[in-house]
Amino acid sequence: MQENRISDAVIHRLPKYYRYLSELEALGIERVSSSRMSHDMNLNASQIRRDLNCFGGFGQQGYGYQVGRLKQEIMRILGIGSSYRAVIVGAGNIGQALLKYRHFADEGYEIVAVFDADPNLIGREVAGRPIRSMDELPEFVKNNGVDIGIIAVPKPFAQKTADMLVSLGVKGIWNFAPVDVQVRRGVSVENVHLSDSLYILSYHMRDQRENN
Amino acid sequence: MQENRISDAVIHRLPKYYRYLSELEALGIERVSSSRMSHDMNLNASQIRRDLNCFGGFGQQGYGYQVGRLKQEIMRILGIGSSYRAVIVGAGNIGQALLKYRHFADEGYEIVAVFDADPNLIGREVAGRPIRSMDELPEFVKNNGVDIGIIAVPKPFAQKTADMLVSLGVKGIWNFAPVDVQVRRGVSVENVHLSDSLYILSYHMRDQRENN
Repeated sequence: MQENRISDAVIHRLPKYYRYLSELEALGIERVSSSRMSHDMNLNASQIRRDLNCFGGFGQQGYGYQVGRLKQEIMRILGIGSSYRAVIVGAGNIGQALLKYRHFADEGYEIVAVFDADPNLIGREVAGRPIRSMDELPEFVKNNGVDIGIIAVPKPFAQKTADMLVSLGVKGIWNFAPVDVQVRRGVSVENVHLSDSLYILSYHMRDQRENN
Repeated sequence: MQENRISDAVIHRLPKYYRYLSELEALGIERVSSSRMSHDMNLNASQIRRDLNCFGGFGQQGYGYQVGRLKQEIMRILGIGSSYRAVIVGAGNIGQALLKYRHFADEGYEIVAVFDADPNLIGREVAGRPIRSMDELPEFVKNNGVDIGIIAVPKPFAQKTADMLVSLGVKGIWNFAPVDVQVRRGVSVENVHLSDSLYILSYHMRDQRENN
């Protein structure tokens, strides 16, 4: 397939294109030139053309890109709008915040259940869903076609939780514990490290202070 | 200064090096070779050597890198362990989750106060800190040497909040609203888009499904 040659760097820029194109669409804008994208997105125009050429290139000289078509194609590549079923393991702060964030469901990522090991949390309702006991996890995952396991447990339990979810058949792990979890071939994982962007921020702050 | 020539791509890998070196240090490991780092971090060994050479290069042929010294240098570059004072604007799910996450304070990023506009939230305590009214924000920021403003308000209020924080003198904005906020020259901003890594995850899941 054509998009198999898309590099990782391009893939990592696609969400940014997607967000930008969504904004344009919301404003009723149907066409956009790479030079305007370059200005608005603070990316090099020739890089934008190269990026978008990777998966077909819908740009036309003097006409620009069709916003809706380009957005649809990026959504298709990223899998946005496909139907994914996810469970959250860990109903602490991050787990509850993710559960309450309705935007994911709008884009096809439905969080169907949340689990925790803490008896004080089990049975409580968050965002209309009961916090379930970890004991229920195996049967729930098997019976409910769960694709994605979201890990929001403390660091020492993260790998064990990933192993369990993978053994139950989930195909993707979205991990918020502050440690990289490993998965076997054939399963995908994204390790989210919230602190990383804070470090990058403080790097830029120091850089600004010392060089301006 | 030497590290001014560090590229953005290298800067974005530094947090990963930092986390890895912290793990090694916790295990009591004092030296590490680029080939071991390559294996553990799933990065190309020559890229690792190039990255680390950017800021002085503490590696020695046949000896490897000194874990502690390299970690300290990366911390210095990123500004980790310097003392930063932050406020959170928005005491919703994300704001509260960030407030409760103690790890930031351990690394020198202290969250000194949290603000919200919702009368139902103002006065409540979260993680030992009262949620303050937005009316108190200007005086608080001016009197408390606040460096970083963390934005955790709904999307329509994000830019306004950033403008206010910048006008009050904060030097860095860490934005969790799902929109890129803009700041004037001299101020730094990191826009966090949680969904982006979910999109990347679903890209990889689709790619695995279709190509294996």
